[in-house]
Amino acid sequence: MRIRPVTVGICGSDVHYCRFGRIGPHVVHGPMVLGHEASGVIVDIGSEVEHLRVGERVCMEPGVVQSPGKATQLGLYNLEPSVRFWATPPVHGVLREHVVHPARFTYKLPDSVSFAEGALVEPMAVGVHAATRAGVKPGDFAVVIGAGPIGILTALSALAAGCAEVVITDVHSEKLSIAGDLSGIIPVNVTTEDIRKVVASRTAGWGADVVFEASGVAAAAEDIVDLVAPGGTIVFVGMPEEPIKFDVVAAQTKEVRIQTVFRYANVFERALELIASGKIRASGLITDTFSFADAVEAFEFAKSLPKSAVKIQIEMS
Amino acid sequence: MRIRPVTVGICGSDVHYCRFGRIGPHVVHGPMVLGHEASGVIVDIGSEVEHLRVGERVCMEPGVVQSPGKATQLGLYNLEPSVRFWATPPVHGVLREHVVHPARFTYKLPDSVSFAEGALVEPMAVGVHAATRAGVKPGDFAVVIGAGPIGILTALSALAAGCAEVVITDVHSEKLSIAGDLSGIIPVNVTTEDIRKVVASRTAGWGADVVFEASGVAAAAEDIVDLVAPGGTIVFVGMPEEPIKFDVVAAQTKEVRIQTVFRYANVFERALELIASGKIRASGLITDTFSFADAVEAFEFAKSLPKSAVKIQIEMS
Amino acid sequence: MRIRPVTVGICGSDVHYCRFGRIGPHVVHGPMVLGHEASGVIVDIGSEVEHLRVGERVCMEPGVVQSPGKATQLGLYNLEPSVRFWATPPVHGVLREHVVHPARFTYKLPDSVSFAEGALVEPMAVGVHAATRAGVKPGDFAVVIGAGPIGILTALSALAAGCAEVVITDVHSEKLSIAGDLSGIIPVNVTTEDIRKVVASRTAGWGADVVFEASGVAAAAEDIVDLVAPGGTIVFVGMPEEPIKFDVVAAQTKEVRIQTVFRYANVFERALELIASGKIRASGLITDTFSFADAVEAFEFAKSLPKSAVKIQIEMS
Amino acid sequence: MRIRPVTVGICGSDVHYCRFGRIGPHVVHGPMVLGHEASGVIVDIGSEVEHLRVGERVCMEPGVVQSPGKATQLGLYNLEPSVRFWATPPVHGVLREHVVHPARFTYKLPDSVSFAEGALVEPMAVGVHAATRAGVKPGDFAVVIGAGPIGILTALSALAAGCAEVVITDVHSEKLSIAGDLSGIIPVNVTTEDIRKVVASRTAGWGADVVFEASGVAAAAEDIVDLVAPGGTIVFVGMPEEPIKFDVVAAQTKEVRIQTVFRYANVFERALELIASGKIRASGLITDTFSFADAVEAFEFAKSLPKSAVKIQIEMS
Repeated sequence: MRIRPVTVGICGSDVHYCRFGRIGPHVVHGPMVLGHEASGVIVDIGSEVEHLRVGERVCMEPGVVQSPGKATQLGLYNLEPSVRFWATPPVHGVLREHVVHPARFTYKLPDSVSFAEGALVEPMAVGVHAATRAGVKPGDFAVVIGAGPIGILTALSALAAGCAEVVITDVHSEKLSIAGDLSGIIPVNVTTEDIRKVVASRTAGWGADVVFEASGVAAAAEDIVDLVAPGGTIVFVGMPEEPIKFDVVAAQTKEVRIQTVFRYANVFERALELIASGKIRASGLITDTFSFADAVEAFEFAKSLPKSAVKIQIEMS
Repeated sequence: MRIRPVTVGICGSDVHYCRFGRIGPHVVHGPMVLGHEASGVIVDIGSEVEHLRVGERVCMEPGVVQSPGKATQLGLYNLEPSVRFWATPPVHGVLREHVVHPARFTYKLPDSVSFAEGALVEPMAVGVHAATRAGVKPGDFAVVIGAGPIGILTALSALAAGCAEVVITDVHSEKLSIAGDLSGIIPVNVTTEDIRKVVASRTAGWGADVVFEASGVAAAAEDIVDLVAPGGTIVFVGMPEEPIKFDVVAAQTKEVRIQTVFRYANVFERALELIASGKIRASGLITDTFSFADAVEAFEFAKSLPKSAVKIQIEMS
Repeated sequence: MRIRPVTVGICGSDVHYCRFGRIGPHVVHGPMVLGHEASGVIVDIGSEVEHLRVGERVCMEPGVVQSPGKATQLGLYNLEPSVRFWATPPVHGVLREHVVHPARFTYKLPDSVSFAEGALVEPMAVGVHAATRAGVKPGDFAVVIGAGPIGILTALSALAAGCAEVVITDVHSEKLSIAGDLSGIIPVNVTTEDIRKVVASRTAGWGADVVFEASGVAAAAEDIVDLVAPGGTIVFVGMPEEPIKFDVVAAQTKEVRIQTVFRYANVFERALELIASGKIRASGLITDTFSFADAVEAFEFAKSLPKSAVKIQIEMS
Repeated sequence: MRIRPVTVGICGSDVHYCRFGRIGPHVVHGPMVLGHEASGVIVDIGSEVEHLRVGERVCMEPGVVQSPGKATQLGLYNLEPSVRFWATPPVHGVLREHVVHPARFTYKLPDSVSFAEGALVEPMAVGVHAATRAGVKPGDFAVVIGAGPIGILTALSALAAGCAEVVITDVHSEKLSIAGDLSGIIPVNVTTEDIRKVVASRTAGWGADVVFEASGVAAAAEDIVDLVAPGGTIVFVGMPEEPIKFDVVAAQTKEVRIQTVFRYANVFERALELIASGKIRASGLITDTFSFADAVEAFEFAKSLPKSAVKIQIEMS
């Protein structure tokens, strides 16, 4: 299936490849097209595809298993070594005129979902997957560490998944201000407030049912056990560059479960449906939009790590 | 702890005891005060209670285990044979001047929650428990069979628990009209529409992730397997008077899981928090309010099973 | 990959097709080779297969998805409509000289596992899948209704999955005698003993953690709720021809979960490993072995539904 | 209920209190009777207890909640702050003539279970709880780090819970020799073998479904992620004195779940039943038995941390 990308979001990973030429073991060795958060229009399609047509507006799940193995068979296709993922070297991303993509990883946008929202489905899927693996239950109280794009999308997903309210923390008041404007999210600036006290006060001393680490900062992750309730769950969404210090005994006295997550599986369509139904209102997170002609400027802006920005998108045409 | 009830909802079970003098094995042998959906004000309190004070507005979880056994130890206190539950014979209900109730089953109402909403927490807890036991995941598509009060509260709970949208079915257009006014709920009148086709159409032939049976009508329950997706879940919330016919083989080809529920456990405070945070907006369901002086009239009205009513409440003072 | 079958077990479904020409919707319209429980030797193999070699002894998972869809992606490949399964019409079975089968559904037999045991892996996988979906926990007490081959294999699987002991019921003393010779299995003849009393006595009145229905007899399934503990699980393994009567309210007072199962997914290799490690000792269940020359006689014997037989196998050479 | 202890096992914690006067925050301030692994005989009983009688042989679950709170209500009574646990300061242990203990935490020993085995139920419960929280599935492959008493009991529990086989590691060949004599346990000495290679070889490169950390050695815990399979589970049973280094990103690429455990809940009777049924054969682990007259000698022996000993017990009379 051939698709013409219309809107492409810039992810932190795109910026990281731009700045450093690598993310951990993934090294960029030659020119590589960036971008994996995309919506577009179908321009060509195989005759055997029944659920989609040329001209339809779609969004695309960017990771495709090349040779299905045991992980796929278990429903964990995101963990397959053979996944080919847009803009993870050496695979080109989606900031180009046309991409070829399998129909089963391409989802039709309802009329109510704009191209810009369609390009938000991919990062939203990260949050929805984290909330799913967390096993959020209705009425849970959650904390999200880090109010960057992934932190905010995780908080929105946790609310959609059943949380009654979510506290989000950061050190930057601009980010917290954006997060705090969203219904159900309570911002806490850890430079001025003690998050332990906030959690204790809001949960009558019990602790948070779920704590999502979304800052990727090792130091932030280390005291995380203090925040969680007995029998509660910590989900590591952020990817700290160094190993963290983990106090096993502190976790044991609460029988804490720690769940790690990697991208997502079986939630892309769900993220789209939550946006389409209005359960997640995410369009306010698109803070900056550039034309494709200004793509270099868009990346320069993104590389400056602006505190006022959540999601930066590029309109292809 | 002594509490003065302020608002008391009328439950279907109250009406059933009124009309028939029994529900299954529970027979009313003498005069019995009705009512178990209540909010009120604390008028007297033991010195050892730390988290509540005289004068505070509260709602009350009506079932209290008398002698904790194995079920309690497992976290299934709702299944204890020794539960003493308001207005289940021979235990008096709450439609009286004062009730004595343990502090740990009494929950403070935040200022934002009215007495009327406080008295909605109990029936809402039924829905929240059903959605919790269902294991609703973010982005699920659910069907609720039956648009009575419990059906509607279950649909709202399923949405709060993560459903992107919920179809609710009934044979009465008045009930469906009320349900359909709530955001995220799609009403289907099964006298004029084929619910199988509706589900197939909305899920691309896959089926509903969860189907809640909330009608208590045996015939409605019998075709329920047709609606559910492979690997999906059916939750029996309604209580059909006769055994239903269950097509095991049809269920097996989808590996359907059937979950039954009984009242609720460990969700009362969660239901309150979902109402307090605005995640569940339920006050519109209070369709009829009577003063205590008109309580007999209220019950006469309730006994007429009015299609236009969802929740009927009595204000005690 | 081309495999020469060496040992093939006769399944109840083979016998049923023989006797009636159909199982529910699956109708035999032309000549069809029977058999799907098989071990054999690899005689030809593609160059890209790395983990297997010509001459190796193997057993084969008989159901292969032809076009992977949503169920596969979720890890539920057994529920795909496109599964092609040996000896389910119109697909030929394995009672022939050679079969072609994908390498990823072919498992090497360790030296310690005979061909006869290798041909037991398939029916054992049914039991292991049932025990897995049941969520058996260490120390559980289980009941299996029906002491046919699948009942006995389910009981052995439940023990391997953690049960401390398993009661198995039947109306035929010969079958119960065979089952009762297996360590950990307690036979109960329901024509002379009240299984309710047996369960109550052995669990101090609490009930069984898991009840497996493996008789496929509708009447046997109807009182099953009486046997299960609060919060317990019923698993429907047997396939009753008619819908059963299911007492929803009785199940609700215990919050019973009912899990249905269909064949198996992701457990074939596990069943093999449990046999190879000696955790499940199943070779004693092979009660009757025929040569291929006597295959007709073997089927005649099987069609007589002999009470003394558990598993009848055919040696191909 | 008054019980005369008959056999009391010595736990590592008893030895630790002896040697250092404290375990983390638990400091011994005055004379304290040790011992919490006990079987005995009932010598006096309240009239309201129905399931036990004077003269009966029993084992005792040593932790009793003093004032049930939210954790108890959730089924997590082991996490209650008010638990009173034998031989955790300032609570006296069971190495004395009589103890008073609640009937509901006292379990009758079947005739087939000796007093010595009865005193093994407590440490076995630690293993059974770990295997339960791990969610071991039938056919799992597990690794246990550390072949001390808790490591060996965890390995036996993992096997009883469904593992096909369990690799156990240590640096002491004497310990591994004892462990390796048990059916299903494969000893690996990490001073001479690379456990990564052993796991890879035995799982065709997939990894272990569950890894139990039972050494309590921080360094041993740090490479643990290398051993676990995609979607697998790590259970921290051992209690390292220092925080460990935890490589979040390595865990994320496999979506590893980490489960911590604290003592046990709802498994004491299950551990007893697994021993009674012969599913767990643990009596061989009682390597050294002392009379009460030689109790000081027993503790001196235990304090020498003998490599040849697994479980040291004291016979009270």
